[in-house]
Amino acid sequence: MCEANVYLLDEDGMPRLYLESVDKIIPEGDEIFLENIFYQRKQIKARIKEMALVEHKIILEKLIK
Amino acid sequence: MCEANVYLLDEDGMPRLYLESVDKIIPEGDEIFLENIFYQRKQIKARIKEMALVEHKIILEKLIK
Repeated sequence: MCEANVYLLDEDGMPRLYLESVDKIIPEGDEIFLENIFYQRKQIKARIKEMALVEHKIILEKLIK
Repeated sequence: MCEANVYLLDEDGMPRLYLESVDKIIPEGDEIFLENIFYQRKQIKARIKEMALVEHKIILEKLIK
């Protein structure tokens, strides 16, 4: 399976696991909707900073308003 | 390998293959930088509309300015 782990950068810029085995990623305005292969869903105000699919890694950065 | 094919929506909203076997995706402002496993690189003014990683599919939508 080719899902990826989604990490969120913390205040120190360190990636923290936010949701594992993510299949679907849908950005909508300033939010990102995530769904993993276990049908867990999360929604967060963030932007995609970087994706490295071969490493199964997606990095998100929180949007501060 | 867990790369994905990147499609760009055409004027009729139909997905057209833009770059195959993409590993790295880095959004920068209103541009997206792509690199595939063959080290081919492309850069486009677009936004990520939807990703379905288990299907190896990423859909981009061109930004019209």
